[in-house]
Amino acid sequence: DIFAFLDTGPSPSLPYLKGKKILVSAGPTREIIDPVRFLSNRSSGKTGFAIAQAAQTQGAEVTLVTGPVELPTPPGVERIDVTSAKDMLDAITPLYDEVDLVIKTAAVADYTPNETFPHKVKKSDGDLSVNMVRTVDILGELGRRKDQQILVGFAAETNKVSEYAEAKIAEKNLDMIVANNVNEAGIGFASDDNKITIFRRDHESIEYDKQSKEDLAYHLLEELQPLFEGDG
Amino acid sequence: DIFAFLDTGPSPSLPYLKGKKILVSAGPTREIIDPVRFLSNRSSGKTGFAIAQAAQTQGAEVTLVTGPVELPTPPGVERIDVTSAKDMLDAITPLYDEVDLVIKTAAVADYTPNETFPHKVKKSDGDLSVNMVRTVDILGELGRRKDQQILVGFAAETNKVSEYAEAKIAEKNLDMIVANNVNEAGIGFASDDNKITIFRRDHESIEYDKQSKEDLAYHLLEELQPLFEGDG
Repeated sequence: DIFAFLDTGPSPSLPYLKGKKILVSAGPTREIIDPVRFLSNRSSGKTGFAIAQAAQTQGAEVTLVTGPVELPTPPGVERIDVTSAKDMLDAITPLYDEVDLVIKTAAVADYTPNETFPHKVKKSDGDLSVNMVRTVDILGELGRRKDQQILVGFAAETNKVSEYAEAKIAEKNLDMIVANNVNEAGIGFASDDNKITIFRRDHESIEYDKQSKEDLAYHLLEELQPLFEGDG
Repeated sequence: DIFAFLDTGPSPSLPYLKGKKILVSAGPTREIIDPVRFLSNRSSGKTGFAIAQAAQTQGAEVTLVTGPVELPTPPGVERIDVTSAKDMLDAITPLYDEVDLVIKTAAVADYTPNETFPHKVKKSDGDLSVNMVRTVDILGELGRRKDQQILVGFAAETNKVSEYAEAKIAEKNLDMIVANNVNEAGIGFASDDNKITIFRRDHESIEYDKQSKEDLAYHLLEELQPLFEGDG
């Protein structure tokens, strides 16, 4: 079909996204120890913001739930700012029933201090132990409650990436998982570029060359087509 | 003296800063748990960057040693980027002998994990303890090694501010300490404004109204005049 060529031109179109309700989570969470100290991670939020922007451009209704990041809100996207893993869960839960797709790029803390102090804890001589408890596994929770929603997870792993990705798809009832190797310099956390592998529920995987987070956002949304058309 | 009036006009001048070597530390530190997770604090670096810029404008040679922040380098200032408390110590130590003034605005972690993992630690069921050890007290170390240097510390306290400030001046051999109350909304961490009290070694203290970090930077440098002129 000669017209197919036009679809890959400079104005890409993913018509199956038009009018879809998409929830993107992004950024790190901060788990508060006291008014000064917190536990966090290196997520910059760039991947999630790029996906939110790309989906909005394709005509989706996008809500972006984000931890503390220094990024401007993409035009036309509804943004909800949160701090902790608990805040993230509380923001996402009431939205979940209504959405068609969740893309969870947020690096949500697995552990949170079991006590938050109202005043700055004074240092003292000697060592210190911070006792932490598990946070709620948000993606696992969404997987258990899954109805019509397409569920896409991310994995920032430093080893055994594919093994872990496959296990996570099954365990959390996901449709797709996007893995990036955060060990490599110049990609991943805080960088503008990334190198990802997409793992699908049907055990297919697609590896992408290093490229901008904006380009990868578009490729990720492209890969969703069979899922939206009910043949993933 | 009628000419004194002119000195407080729109082009303020602090001639005692001209050619002085000034070291400013700024921002938070990040104490690394694994390639993804870290412990940090809410310092934005804005106060330190404002002081570095103000001092440079007055003709000082300014080196700015900063933890991870999202701020542009003030023109004419030499910037050294660091991550952890240990990096901060290693960057400051070799510069100390040569400088006339150190202003330590950095919020350096008091504790660091006693082990850094080369791979992301997998979460597991149940609780977790992060065991931490004390970092080197950089300001205390500079106080012990003090020669010609003027030493200014900061205190981000949430209670008993003046009591703590006075004790810290004596204990760390400082010339001045700047205290801000990080409990109040709209000031302090991450904000553009701040409300500070300056405590001097002679037990005098000066409280400033809430104002921009740029204006406070100038007031702080003004208060250094007697110290540079050998009569503080």
